[in-house]
Amino acid sequence: MTLDPLLFGEIDPPQRLLMGPGPVNAHPRVLRAMSADLLGQFDPEMTGYMNQVMALYRPIFGTANRWTMLIDGTARAAIEAALVSLVAPGETVLVVNFGRFGLLLTEILGRIGARIESVEAPWGETVPLDAIAAAIERTAPKVVATIHGDTSTTMAQPLDGLGDLCHAAGALLYVDATATLGGMDIAADRWGADIVTGGLQKCLGGPSGSAPMTISDAAAEHIFTRRHTEAGIRATGTVDGKGPRIGSNYFDLAMIMDYWSEKRLNHHTEATSMLYASRECARVALGEGLEARYARHAAAGRAVTAGLRAMGLTVFGDDRFRMTNVTGVYIPDGVDGERVRAAMRDHFEIEIGTAFGPLAGRIWRIGAMGYNAMKHKVLITLGALEACLRAEGFVLPAGAAVTAALEAWEA
Amino acid sequence: MTLDPLLFGEIDPPQRLLMGPGPVNAHPRVLRAMSADLLGQFDPEMTGYMNQVMALYRPIFGTANRWTMLIDGTARAAIEAALVSLVAPGETVLVVNFGRFGLLLTEILGRIGARIESVEAPWGETVPLDAIAAAIERTAPKVVATIHGDTSTTMAQPLDGLGDLCHAAGALLYVDATATLGGMDIAADRWGADIVTGGLQKCLGGPSGSAPMTISDAAAEHIFTRRHTEAGIRATGTVDGKGPRIGSNYFDLAMIMDYWSEKRLNHHTEATSMLYASRECARVALGEGLEARYARHAAAGRAVTAGLRAMGLTVFGDDRFRMTNVTGVYIPDGVDGERVRAAMRDHFEIEIGTAFGPLAGRIWRIGAMGYNAMKHKVLITLGALEACLRAEGFVLPAGAAVTAALEAWEA
Repeated sequence: MTLDPLLFGEIDPPQRLLMGPGPVNAHPRVLRAMSADLLGQFDPEMTGYMNQVMALYRPIFGTANRWTMLIDGTARAAIEAALVSLVAPGETVLVVNFGRFGLLLTEILGRIGARIESVEAPWGETVPLDAIAAAIERTAPKVVATIHGDTSTTMAQPLDGLGDLCHAAGALLYVDATATLGGMDIAADRWGADIVTGGLQKCLGGPSGSAPMTISDAAAEHIFTRRHTEAGIRATGTVDGKGPRIGSNYFDLAMIMDYWSEKRLNHHTEATSMLYASRECARVALGEGLEARYARHAAAGRAVTAGLRAMGLTVFGDDRFRMTNVTGVYIPDGVDGERVRAAMRDHFEIEIGTAFGPLAGRIWRIGAMGYNAMKHKVLITLGALEACLRAEGFVLPAGAAVTAALEAWEA
Repeated sequence: MTLDPLLFGEIDPPQRLLMGPGPVNAHPRVLRAMSADLLGQFDPEMTGYMNQVMALYRPIFGTANRWTMLIDGTARAAIEAALVSLVAPGETVLVVNFGRFGLLLTEILGRIGARIESVEAPWGETVPLDAIAAAIERTAPKVVATIHGDTSTTMAQPLDGLGDLCHAAGALLYVDATATLGGMDIAADRWGADIVTGGLQKCLGGPSGSAPMTISDAAAEHIFTRRHTEAGIRATGTVDGKGPRIGSNYFDLAMIMDYWSEKRLNHHTEATSMLYASRECARVALGEGLEARYARHAAAGRAVTAGLRAMGLTVFGDDRFRMTNVTGVYIPDGVDGERVRAAMRDHFEIEIGTAFGPLAGRIWRIGAMGYNAMKHKVLITLGALEACLRAEGFVLPAGAAVTAALEAWEA
C-alpha cells in the first residue's frame, strides 16, 4: 500500500455557493439529519420512517397516490425505474423532447427496446399541447414520457390537460420532475400523470442519491402484471409470479412496491441515511409551505432574469415557459465563458453552470433553488458576475444588475 | 394537506445495537463526514475527492485496477451494473450458487437475457473448485459469477485459483463481495477477479446507498466494446459509439467510467454525501490497517461461535468455510424465534437477524461487523440472548456463553 499515511485528510470541502443548475447547497437541517445512526431495515422504527416518507411526499407531488416512495439512486435512477417498469420491449412510447433530458428519455427507452416516437421543440421552446395531441393520434403510444423542467434549456413544459389526452388514447403519462420538485407547482393528480419522479439535489435542497417518485393506481396495476417474487426469499415450494419479468431487478417497481408495502418483501437494503435526508427535505419544504416555497423560487427567477438583463445580457429561451429556478443567459461576444466561471469560483467561491450539447460554450446557466433561492444569494451572485464581466472588458452599467434584481424580487 | 402539523418530528431513531447480517451501526466518523456541505459535480475539489476515493478503495479490494470507483445505489445496484455491463443477451454465464445471493445473480442475469448455467452447493456449504472447473468445461461460459460471502447461509466461497481457471477458459470472473468487503481478505488481483463489487453497510460500517467496485483492465476493455456517448451531451455533429448498447443507462459502466475518468462526461449527478461516507469508511478501514481489521472480524466470529456453542446451541453450516462476520445458529426446538428477536429488541435494544427461504424460521443470524465487530458488543449480545432464551424456558449453563466468547476472542 503506497497511500499517503494521512489518507488525504478529513473531509473539508471549500464553502462554495452553488448557483448552477444543481446540485445546490444542502439545507443544514438535511445534512444534520444524515448524522443520525442507522436502523435495521425491518425495525418497526425504520418502517415507520418509510411510511412517514410516503406521507410527506404526497403533497410535494400534488397527489393522493398510495405509491409514493423513494428509489435508492440519483434522479436518473428513478427515471429508468419508471420507464423499465412501465414499458415492455416493443411497445411504443411517445417522448416529448425539448432538451437534453428528453434525449435522455429516448436513450433509456432505446435500451429497454421500446419503439420510440418523438414530438419535438427546438432547445429554448416547449411543445404545444395540440402538437402532442396530434402525435398521440399518429403514434398510438402505450406511454407518453416528458420532462417537466429541462435544465439544459431552462424551459418548463406546460402539463395541464396532458393526462386527459393520454388516458383518452389509452396511454399512461410519465413526467420527470427532477429539476422542479419542491420549487415549482408539481400537480401529479391535476396533470393526470401516472408516474412522476424527482431528486433531492435541486429545489428540495438535499444531496443527490435518493429519488422520490409517485405512481398512480392505474400505473401500479399495469406494473403488477409483471410482478414476481425473488427465488431467494420465496417460501419453499411457493410459485413465482407469471408472465414476463421487468428488464431490471434493481429498478423493478413491482418489487420495490412490495418492499414499501406492509408485505415488506426484502429487495435492496434501504439507503437509510439518504432516507433520513429525503424525510428532512420534505419536512423543510412542507414546514415552509409549498405555496410560499413556489413564490420564493418565482421571486428568485424574476430577480436573476431582471439582473442579467440590466447588465445588458440576453436571456436564453422563451419567457412564457421559463423555469423559475434556473436561467440561461448568452455569453456575450468577446467574453471567455470558462474564464468567467473560473473567476467566479476563484474570487467569489460561487459556481455558475456551463451548458450541454448545442448550447455548450454559448450560454451560462444560473440557478437559484432550494436553500439557495434566497434574495441575498441572488444579489451576491449578480454582483460577482458583474465584476467578473468587467474584468473581461465587457462594458455594462455599473450596479444596475443588483438594483434591478432587488426590485424584481420585491415585486 | 392533512399531515400532522409537526410533520412527524425531528429524526430521532432509537439507539439500537445492530447485530444482524447488516446493515450495522455506522462508524460515527462516517456519519459526521456526511454532514459536510455539497460541491458542484465538476468542481475541482469534488473531482479531487472522487480521485481520492479511487485510490482509497484499491487496497480495500486488493487491487491495482485503475477502474475502482462507486456506483450510486445500494450493493445490489453494483451487482446489476457489473452483470448488465459484462454480459450481452444470449451469452452464457455460469453462476456459482450456494445461497440466496447466488439466486439473486441468476435472477438479475435472467432479466438481462443471459443463458444461465449453475454449479451449486446446498445452503450451508460452498462449491469445490474442481466442481466449478468441471462446470466451466461443460458450459463454456463468457462470464463466471459468484458470491464471496453469502449472508443467507453465512458461508464464504474460497476464490483463490478461480480467476486462472476462468481466464484459461476465456471467461471473465465476477465476484460479489458485498458482505465481506473490509472485513475478510478481499484480493481481487490475487483471485484474478475481473469485477468485484461491495457495499458500505456491512464490514465497512457505513450506510447503504453507495457501492464500491473495481474493474480489471480486461473487463474494462470488454465493456468498452459497447461504449456510447449520450446524445444530449455530445458535441453537435459528432458520432456516437457503434454496435449494441448496454441494456441499462444508469448501470452502463462504460459511461460511468467516462464520468470517473479525466473525460468527466456527465452521467448521473454523483451522490456527494454518500461519496463522503464512502471516503470516510475507507479512511477508517485503512487507518486501522486491513490485517488488523480482518483479525478483529475473525476474533468476533470466533467469539460468537464459541459463545453460541457454550449455550448448547447448534451453529449452522460448515466450519471450514464460515464467514467471520455473520454466524447462523439453529433456533432450538420449543423456542419461538420471533419472540426471542422481539425480546432482544424490546429489553436490550439489540437486533439479531432472521433468515430467508429454506432457512426462514429455522436459524437466526448474528452479525459482528464493521463498527460492531467489537468485543463488548459481542459479549453483550450473547448475554442478552442467554437471558431471552432462558425466558423462553430453554435450559442452558448460566454465564457460559460470555466466558467462552471472551476466551475465544482473546485466543
